[in-house]
Amino acid sequence: MMRSFDGHHPSLGKALSHLLSSGGKRIRPTVAILAGKMLDVEMEHLILHAAAIEMLHTATLVHDDLIDGAMLRRGIPTLNARWSAGATVLTGDYIFARAAHLAAQTGSLELIESFASTLMTIVNGEITQLFELEPDDLQQSYYDRIYAKTASLFEISTAGVALIGGCDDETYETMRTFGHHIGVAFQIVDDILDFTGDQESVGKPVGSDLRQGLLTLPTLLYLEQHEDGRNLARSLREKEIDELELEQLIDAVRTSPAIGLALQKAERFTQQGEELLTNMPATPERGALIEIARYVVRRNL
Amino acid sequence: MMRSFDGHHPSLGKALSHLLSSGGKRIRPTVAILAGKMLDVEMEHLILHAAAIEMLHTATLVHDDLIDGAMLRRGIPTLNARWSAGATVLTGDYIFARAAHLAAQTGSLELIESFASTLMTIVNGEITQLFELEPDDLQQSYYDRIYAKTASLFEISTAGVALIGGCDDETYETMRTFGHHIGVAFQIVDDILDFTGDQESVGKPVGSDLRQGLLTLPTLLYLEQHEDGRNLARSLREKEIDELELEQLIDAVRTSPAIGLALQKAERFTQQGEELLTNMPATPERGALIEIARYVVRRNL
Repeated sequence: MMRSFDGHHPSLGKALSHLLSSGGKRIRPTVAILAGKMLDVEMEHLILHAAAIEMLHTATLVHDDLIDGAMLRRGIPTLNARWSAGATVLTGDYIFARAAHLAAQTGSLELIESFASTLMTIVNGEITQLFELEPDDLQQSYYDRIYAKTASLFEISTAGVALIGGCDDETYETMRTFGHHIGVAFQIVDDILDFTGDQESVGKPVGSDLRQGLLTLPTLLYLEQHEDGRNLARSLREKEIDELELEQLIDAVRTSPAIGLALQKAERFTQQGEELLTNMPATPERGALIEIARYVVRRNL
Repeated sequence: MMRSFDGHHPSLGKALSHLLSSGGKRIRPTVAILAGKMLDVEMEHLILHAAAIEMLHTATLVHDDLIDGAMLRRGIPTLNARWSAGATVLTGDYIFARAAHLAAQTGSLELIESFASTLMTIVNGEITQLFELEPDDLQQSYYDRIYAKTASLFEISTAGVALIGGCDDETYETMRTFGHHIGVAFQIVDDILDFTGDQESVGKPVGSDLRQGLLTLPTLLYLEQHEDGRNLARSLREKEIDELELEQLIDAVRTSPAIGLALQKAERFTQQGEELLTNMPATPERGALIEIARYVVRRNL
């Protein structure tokens, strides 16, 4: 990912190096490479694909952190915490371009179209969130949002290797669905950890989603059991709730059965993902993918 | 360009419709289609390419206007004048994705790689401008900047059709250089019009570049004849110059021989561009490209 900055401004290299140094789990590229090895796809193309995925992900985070005014990610300062908004927007754009360039080098036009569609899906999800009035179906709105935000990129991580490898439609569909399910589970668990994780390991205050008026699955499942759930949901979304009440609510969600119920939903997705893999070649990589699917719902819990 | 918004948030369609309604000269897609027709490239692919070019251009303008805090472009409000910074960043990202999607539909992997490289070049130019200390060679710095800002996109407009059409290396190189030269001339003339155009037709105050500390070719050629040119250049770049002195300087540049000298430079580029076309097929489209090259240096002068 750090290769070939020749001729470009050193600040761009520094920014990217800073962004990549934060580590992160690199779960998307790992899943992509394992899925590709399982399907016997050429390693050179897999690495380009995996790097493109991580770049696309990084670029969206750069713009998101700017939009949200986030100062820290994974415990290190965000780009916008150090640089002007202008330089941050441009660096995100540059990383998008590098992602597209890497994707093109895989030699698959279908992959590039899918990359572009995925970016549209991600952005469309964020725009919808910005402009959305009160949705009729809060859970459906939640699942739509996490598809756009997270599952769509997991989907292309695994479906993309089937495109590069020229696999048949059934394999493509299996891999796409596997990626989708792991992605949904991953995001549900992230949303659970926002309540149950300790501030240090999550890297942001407990209940930060709810503090921003964002209703995630644990909150929605909690509110379903609450007599005045619908009104409370509205107050939360519109941030018309006082500090004390908010703290009490975060604590109530955190200690309620809603956490366990949300985890069950996540587990159902990973189990379905695991089942899909039974039709795939029984390689060590398939075993590793199953381990990752299980890790997704067990991490930090 | 407006096709296939199915399933995406109506605000994105509205934003794009607003952006495209402003018209503009559409010179890049026009040059691309004429060049492609001249080389007998399939029209369906040319239209996708031309639309991708205009989309990429539009996306960069959306982010630039946000970064510069510009409120008007082509006489109509910019997106950032109406929307939040967040929605504006995201809309630009969405348009980048659509540009990539259109480019992929041309079926040329080389074109997509070139698109991605062009976006990197454009962004790298802007980043360089943001971080640049005093350059040693002010004219070289100017030409580097206008290559990144304008000529690179003209270059891919014309070189891209050679990639789509699978033309030989010589044709590719001729078309690339033609696009480059027209682009450089176009930007030089834009920079002249910033001094000589009337505020209404240019859509911004006379001398707006200099007011922002941006030294363009007319200013550089003027300063070359000025005994204290180098120091004055520094003061201008660092905006350490009082209002009255600035107004006088704008007036001095505007009425100086530097304007004519800059125009001569632009004309030399378009003439070289014209000469390159003598080796290309003598079609009506070649004639139209020559007309456009001439128009580029004559418009509004």
